[in-house]
Amino acid sequence: MTENFERVALIGLGLIGSSLAHAIRQRKIAGHISGYARSEATRRKAAELKLADSIHQSAADAVRDADLVILCSPVGTYGALAQGIAPALKPGAILTDVGSVKAAVVRDVLPHLPQGVSFIPGHPIAGTEQSGPESGFAELFINRWCILTPLPDADPSAVEKLVKFWQDCGSNVEIMTPEHHDLVLAITSHLPHLIAYNIVSTAADLEEVTDSEVIKYSAGGFRDFTRIAASDPTMWRDVFLNNKEAVLEMLGRFSEDLSALQRAIRWGDGDMLFNLFSRSREIRRSIIAAGQDTAAPNFGRGVPKTQ
Amino acid sequence: MTENFERVALIGLGLIGSSLAHAIRQRKIAGHISGYARSEATRRKAAELKLADSIHQSAADAVRDADLVILCSPVGTYGALAQGIAPALKPGAILTDVGSVKAAVVRDVLPHLPQGVSFIPGHPIAGTEQSGPESGFAELFINRWCILTPLPDADPSAVEKLVKFWQDCGSNVEIMTPEHHDLVLAITSHLPHLIAYNIVSTAADLEEVTDSEVIKYSAGGFRDFTRIAASDPTMWRDVFLNNKEAVLEMLGRFSEDLSALQRAIRWGDGDMLFNLFSRSREIRRSIIAAGQDTAAPNFGRGVPKTQ
Repeated sequence: MTENFERVALIGLGLIGSSLAHAIRQRKIAGHISGYARSEATRRKAAELKLADSIHQSAADAVRDADLVILCSPVGTYGALAQGIAPALKPGAILTDVGSVKAAVVRDVLPHLPQGVSFIPGHPIAGTEQSGPESGFAELFINRWCILTPLPDADPSAVEKLVKFWQDCGSNVEIMTPEHHDLVLAITSHLPHLIAYNIVSTAADLEEVTDSEVIKYSAGGFRDFTRIAASDPTMWRDVFLNNKEAVLEMLGRFSEDLSALQRAIRWGDGDMLFNLFSRSREIRRSIIAAGQDTAAPNFGRGVPKTQ
Repeated sequence: MTENFERVALIGLGLIGSSLAHAIRQRKIAGHISGYARSEATRRKAAELKLADSIHQSAADAVRDADLVILCSPVGTYGALAQGIAPALKPGAILTDVGSVKAAVVRDVLPHLPQGVSFIPGHPIAGTEQSGPESGFAELFINRWCILTPLPDADPSAVEKLVKFWQDCGSNVEIMTPEHHDLVLAITSHLPHLIAYNIVSTAADLEEVTDSEVIKYSAGGFRDFTRIAASDPTMWRDVFLNNKEAVLEMLGRFSEDLSALQRAIRWGDGDMLFNLFSRSREIRRSIIAAGQDTAAPNFGRGVPKTQ
């Protein structure tokens, strides 16, 4: 693999930023990695882990001379960051991001950018429930999809270079509009997280059932929800504040459907329940067939290898 | 380990029945296993897998001479089964079950039973999203909790024998009332399943987002829900029909909480979102500390061992 970029700047060194650092190193994607993190503690940890060749106290310093700049912090920080780095961006540089919403990112970042910088929003559909510079690993992006949402006037050769970057990280790349991205992710990611956070909160507030009972008997299904509900609160606050319309639309549909299920339970409509429950296995099978989840029962937890 | 029971009868040979068969064999818990399954196909498969020493076409034949009889079919079948096996139950036998609801099981089973049979309802909090006689494995119950809900007049020595049975299978045992069980499981298991089935259904019905997009980008969180939504539809229909009150109560609280979250998103109340999202990590940590889930990020899917 030849080096696609001379210098890459990672703005934000949490789970995604640090995973990119590992992947870029392992796969020799760039000659030099410069890194920026807002907090002193993260910068120190990142230095200790040798995540970057140079670590900077200012984002502007980190992006100077970089051919590729990747925003890897919560999307709520992008506007101020873009404003801060704009004067330091090299002409011809590619600026991208990894944020979970895309229309709001275009709205916040684009107005600050100088001519001659190619801004191509992006979103790798990859992550774990962990966060921070020590949570990253090079394999995070392998066999995951990365969505790019280039604007209509994007430079095709810059898009091509960014596609290759993500392929070099092990991902498949798909191109769509920011608006369609936000709708797709509202159902495949944002609503699942919202529901998971919500049920954990509902369970914690019960009076008749203690927290210790919820924890003891969580293997009945609840534990699965606690994993995604352990994701980074700042990141997810910013997602919901910045994809309001699509999330509210999906939430409206979800609540309507849930009311219909509630009614079926109240009236004892077993056929309705059975038919709805029977539809779901096919989608699970397709997700496994598409390589997007493990076929092992219980995600492989506590199940012998021979199963 | 000495054999606790001479003959155990397994009524139903799906995931739980077949797992019990494997566990009883492997841990030498009983001298003889007799099995019953409603369908010819399951009986044939069970015979092929040698799940039982004798396999019967009638449940009454299977329970004859058994010291321990375990109902392992969907809870909707228990009333008719109890009626059918009652005349064949051996005096002094213990009758138990593995159903996910308990008050309805007492209601359906108890009226049919003869004097001299100890009925002790039970529920192992263990399972996978798979079903059928080939899905079982001996380790399913290890480190899981099994809840017993003996009636006030239960014979203590019978309860003690059943406690030992589940401990021999690798489980921890807790005793509570059927009503409290149904409330606890409504939040830790029934509501999570209902929500998972519901979001998969909502996603499948969208017009603007295709099923293939939902599948491709499911690693954003959605895939986790599809696992429990792939559980057995008959079993889950029967759970919701038989734990109506507790499920409706939990569902009401969940929906109220979700409306508050929806309002916070609509009005851009970032502090409310952040505070609610921040509460969840502690519960996840407690579940891992209690040995009820893996600490590996992403349940260990696609994460290198060194992480």
